[in-house]
Amino acid sequence: MQKEETKRSCLAVILAAGESTRMKSSQSKVLHPIGNRPMIAHVVDALAAAGISEIALVLGRDAEKVEAAARHPSVRAETYIQNERLGTAHAVLAAREAIAKGYDDVLVVFGDTPLLTQTPLQDARAGLAGGSDVVVVGFMAADPFGYGRLLVENGELVAIREEKDATPAERAIPYCNGGLMAIDGRKALGLIEKIGNANAKGEYYLTDIVEVVRAAGGHATTVEAPEEELTGCNTRAELAFIERLWQQRRRTALMLSGVSMVAPETVFLSYDTTVGQDVTIEPNVVFGPGVTVESGAVIHAFSHIEGAHVSAGASVGPFARLRPGANLGPDSKVGNFCEVKKAEIGAGAKVNHLTYIGDAFIGAGSNIGAGTITCNYDGINKHETRIGENAFIGSNSALVAPVTIGDGAYVASGSVITEDVPADAVAFGRARQENKPERARLVRERNAALKAARK
Amino acid sequence: MQKEETKRSCLAVILAAGESTRMKSSQSKVLHPIGNRPMIAHVVDALAAAGISEIALVLGRDAEKVEAAARHPSVRAETYIQNERLGTAHAVLAAREAIAKGYDDVLVVFGDTPLLTQTPLQDARAGLAGGSDVVVVGFMAADPFGYGRLLVENGELVAIREEKDATPAERAIPYCNGGLMAIDGRKALGLIEKIGNANAKGEYYLTDIVEVVRAAGGHATTVEAPEEELTGCNTRAELAFIERLWQQRRRTALMLSGVSMVAPETVFLSYDTTVGQDVTIEPNVVFGPGVTVESGAVIHAFSHIEGAHVSAGASVGPFARLRPGANLGPDSKVGNFCEVKKAEIGAGAKVNHLTYIGDAFIGAGSNIGAGTITCNYDGINKHETRIGENAFIGSNSALVAPVTIGDGAYVASGSVITEDVPADAVAFGRARQENKPERARLVRERNAALKAARK
Amino acid sequence: MQKEETKRSCLAVILAAGESTRMKSSQSKVLHPIGNRPMIAHVVDALAAAGISEIALVLGRDAEKVEAAARHPSVRAETYIQNERLGTAHAVLAAREAIAKGYDDVLVVFGDTPLLTQTPLQDARAGLAGGSDVVVVGFMAADPFGYGRLLVENGELVAIREEKDATPAERAIPYCNGGLMAIDGRKALGLIEKIGNANAKGEYYLTDIVEVVRAAGGHATTVEAPEEELTGCNTRAELAFIERLWQQRRRTALMLSGVSMVAPETVFLSYDTTVGQDVTIEPNVVFGPGVTVESGAVIHAFSHIEGAHVSAGASVGPFARLRPGANLGPDSKVGNFCEVKKAEIGAGAKVNHLTYIGDAFIGAGSNIGAGTITCNYDGINKHETRIGENAFIGSNSALVAPVTIGDGAYVASGSVITEDVPADAVAFGRARQENKPERARLVRERNAALKAARK
Repeated sequence: MQKEETKRSCLAVILAAGESTRMKSSQSKVLHPIGNRPMIAHVVDALAAAGISEIALVLGRDAEKVEAAARHPSVRAETYIQNERLGTAHAVLAAREAIAKGYDDVLVVFGDTPLLTQTPLQDARAGLAGGSDVVVVGFMAADPFGYGRLLVENGELVAIREEKDATPAERAIPYCNGGLMAIDGRKALGLIEKIGNANAKGEYYLTDIVEVVRAAGGHATTVEAPEEELTGCNTRAELAFIERLWQQRRRTALMLSGVSMVAPETVFLSYDTTVGQDVTIEPNVVFGPGVTVESGAVIHAFSHIEGAHVSAGASVGPFARLRPGANLGPDSKVGNFCEVKKAEIGAGAKVNHLTYIGDAFIGAGSNIGAGTITCNYDGINKHETRIGENAFIGSNSALVAPVTIGDGAYVASGSVITEDVPADAVAFGRARQENKPERARLVRERNAALKAARK
Repeated sequence: MQKEETKRSCLAVILAAGESTRMKSSQSKVLHPIGNRPMIAHVVDALAAAGISEIALVLGRDAEKVEAAARHPSVRAETYIQNERLGTAHAVLAAREAIAKGYDDVLVVFGDTPLLTQTPLQDARAGLAGGSDVVVVGFMAADPFGYGRLLVENGELVAIREEKDATPAERAIPYCNGGLMAIDGRKALGLIEKIGNANAKGEYYLTDIVEVVRAAGGHATTVEAPEEELTGCNTRAELAFIERLWQQRRRTALMLSGVSMVAPETVFLSYDTTVGQDVTIEPNVVFGPGVTVESGAVIHAFSHIEGAHVSAGASVGPFARLRPGANLGPDSKVGNFCEVKKAEIGAGAKVNHLTYIGDAFIGAGSNIGAGTITCNYDGINKHETRIGENAFIGSNSALVAPVTIGDGAYVASGSVITEDVPADAVAFGRARQENKPERARLVRERNAALKAARK
Repeated sequence: MQKEETKRSCLAVILAAGESTRMKSSQSKVLHPIGNRPMIAHVVDALAAAGISEIALVLGRDAEKVEAAARHPSVRAETYIQNERLGTAHAVLAAREAIAKGYDDVLVVFGDTPLLTQTPLQDARAGLAGGSDVVVVGFMAADPFGYGRLLVENGELVAIREEKDATPAERAIPYCNGGLMAIDGRKALGLIEKIGNANAKGEYYLTDIVEVVRAAGGHATTVEAPEEELTGCNTRAELAFIERLWQQRRRTALMLSGVSMVAPETVFLSYDTTVGQDVTIEPNVVFGPGVTVESGAVIHAFSHIEGAHVSAGASVGPFARLRPGANLGPDSKVGNFCEVKKAEIGAGAKVNHLTYIGDAFIGAGSNIGAGTITCNYDGINKHETRIGENAFIGSNSALVAPVTIGDGAYVASGSVITEDVPADAVAFGRARQENKPERARLVRERNAALKAARK
């Protein structure tokens, strides 16, 4: 049956013109990120996953940014501006031109429901294919207070009853309006245009389409979806709640695929985080966008990783910061208070203590001592540091780029390296030590005497 | 009506003389912090917010410290010591002298209820103003087991029934005694003195005042408050529970005011944390006391901030440690494994990698290289480092204070700077590098030979 | 009565031969850690705590590793390999030889229930002592769906009814089969051998023993245990769930013993973590194995501690990394971005900023400046750094081991120390500074000119 459906043409109208007032934000709410990706992009992902390739964006605030955020390689989008806010039916009519092209199915979705998946979309379209004129997506509310109740009789959606108009018996109904709706594409404009605004606020409510369609002798039905998928976002508290549900979903999927997390609730994933089987992730790890971790790697506690690749068997953290372009080879280690940016760390190489590696290539098997700094920036340009295989960089060294350290070379601790070091050579770049006997005692005594004199 | 009330005089008696045995602590439980502020200070805050300016502290253990912790600029407090522990009524009578001064209203509150707000206090006083002699604050318990049930008939509080004395029908009552109570100030002493100790423990229970007042033909009533506000603290597990509720309350308030938190449950606020609109706070951030963050700043993951100011557009972390006196200018950055203490970071200045900045002034636009250390302590005194505008401090440099680096000056990487650097000058303070060809190979070979010989 | 019991001999059969397919793991699920200890070791701990000293391990995958993980000083274990997977009764019979030795009690437990304590084990054995032939451990399920229901009549276990075979009335029973079972040791083999495999999968189910024992006129009874203790582990999501329950249990125990945790849900303990009274643990602290913290110490946020001892009054973190062999003396401090490994930190000594201390002894009262690195590894061997009492190590110094700094000695900031420093001496090991006036300006101007020319 689903194969049948996909032959039907479909337009999805995404409503995203709201003022987002309660977000108290300098940008439209649909631009706020979930899993480091704008909310609206998640909605478009769900549409694309459901095989829908044409969308009409109804936008207001930040229209250009929202349009950009909604871009998707397999979806063609057109933007319509809603200049006045006169209700959801009015919003859909902003896309009148698109709807008028004549699709089999028209879906109305909301830009602030990033937990939506393809399933309710497919179910609602199946309802149209089955003969309904309007299919409303409902959910069983844990706490129905405040939602419109779906009154269903003999499989027909009789009405959507708002809280304030509901009888006590109707209020006891947990089946609620999720907002999302599918409409017969050939009838959609006609039906929506019949919706009036004879209500307290003088607005045009899309939910009134049920009344319209029934008055015209048509069929309205419902399909059920999990409450989670229909959760909308009006405040930053709701944004955090949605982020939490999203993270839980992704964490559980990773765990079921064979990733161990000691405390999943402390691991934060991005929309594109990829983690292989038998990886262990300790508590308190943050994945920014663009991270791939291969099988068998260990991500220790307090690691912050973005735009980085971690190869099989590598060990990251605790307290590691991998920035874009960090590429850790197999069995390499980057640990305690080390930062790596735009650098290859060769197989088995170790960068383990208080080190900054930026714009660098480190060969396999090399050991970078504690406190090593690649001085990659001269105030004007960035330069590269190249370290060969099995080299040893003594602790607290500064490698002033551009500079090359050969295979098997050895940099003495505390050196400032400004020139290339040939393979197998030892480089020194530090001053000779001089001891002044008794001087510390003398200074202490003089200081004590001064203090005493002051009193 | 509330305006009427505030004309009535009021004394609040705070009971805080408990031994705190179950806390297993070296200090009184009311000194334990919630949101980095002693528990009892939160209670005094609620009283002050309710417009109450006179309190009697009934103290036992750690009386001086508790008195100090309870100080509030708009509240006058007197301390009374309860030497014996003979029940709550006995505790209130320790403040007999204060009560005897003759107030319109006497409130009895507990020092270990830091989630209390002004509302129940005002509601209870309104009950007195409305003609009650005693007003008990109750709550609908999620799990009433163990609490005294409030038996209310026709708006009158008939009795407070302890669990052990309750009939099955009474046990089913979820409305419970919250401890907090308002008493007609003119009658308070007379009523409390009539409370007897004919019970198993031989103690004087304040809850028996209901019986006393009703026997005398007076009126006892109740007002309801949320269970959360009346939560008391007897163990460190309950302390953690209260901290959690307190943090949730503050986090939600911040989010609703326009602050984004990816994972609010991992952000820890202090009682005085101030965060502007459109600030994003990533997961795992700890705010100690004394922090203000201006609009549009970003606090990245794994940041620990106390006594610091973060200006608009500034970026903190990940892995930043701001200590008291850190003052970050607009659009400045302090990031990866950097610590800043008592220092001004100028507009747009960058302190981004493995750096310690203490007792310093950094001018606008300056760039502090990775691994830079301000050597502010000579073992006896702390000294200042002053860096001008648009200066460049090369990586892994040590700036030995007191020292001044001029505007536009440039410190070469790996330098130890012990003298001032004039504006626009370049300073070097590092040894020349020397390479010893083949020496690393020779050492390796000799070492391998030694190892072989030992076998 | 319990003293009577302990005179009865007992064999515990631990079933741990599962393939762990749903874990998607390269190792048996019972090797996966809870609290940094293999799951099966927790089960053996519970048995040992119940006074059981003989166990039969029924193993399949990773038998040698599991055997090693199950080792316990007070328990004698024998291993039996289950080559085919033909059900739980078949699994128990793999240990036929052990059961045949003739014990009073035979317990059947599962290797993937690490939350088990001694209580259900003792309760089940008490049931045998009281005359039952089989005692099944049951639990009141929060959600019984899918579990076998325990049908009990007049104290007798009449049947274990699987979900699919249950009537609606039976499905409403919340009392469920926990898996764990005690069997009269003299009858055990006879009973289990009578279990047939006439079921859909053709497997031998141990639960059928109830039918067998009742058919033979024997007694089957049940004892109840908390659901938590019987939680088994089939996926990594369940592993994380069990870890969470285990952590909560340990955190609560610590708090009730007088340890303060601001946010217990962010503190991760190991099986052997020991923390004294009046210790405060801030949010986000990870304890690896082998940590002891004495009374009155403070563990600040973002600390990662393993194999370390923290003495009374010491302060750790924020952002401290203590590795095995770190031994912090009384009132010492290790803080911001410091790593300590295999080192003694003397009483009152301070290691507070961006420092690496490895293989070192630091005397009482010494101050280690920011950015200090002990260069303990020369690429071949590790060497020691010894610092006396009340010494001062200037910031950004490199101490090249082996090296000794005497009592009261002073190392100038930015020094590389390669030779011993006598007591009370001052050591310098840094280059002289040289300023090149105007050079920074010239470089800037030349660079700007070059850029302009390129355009």
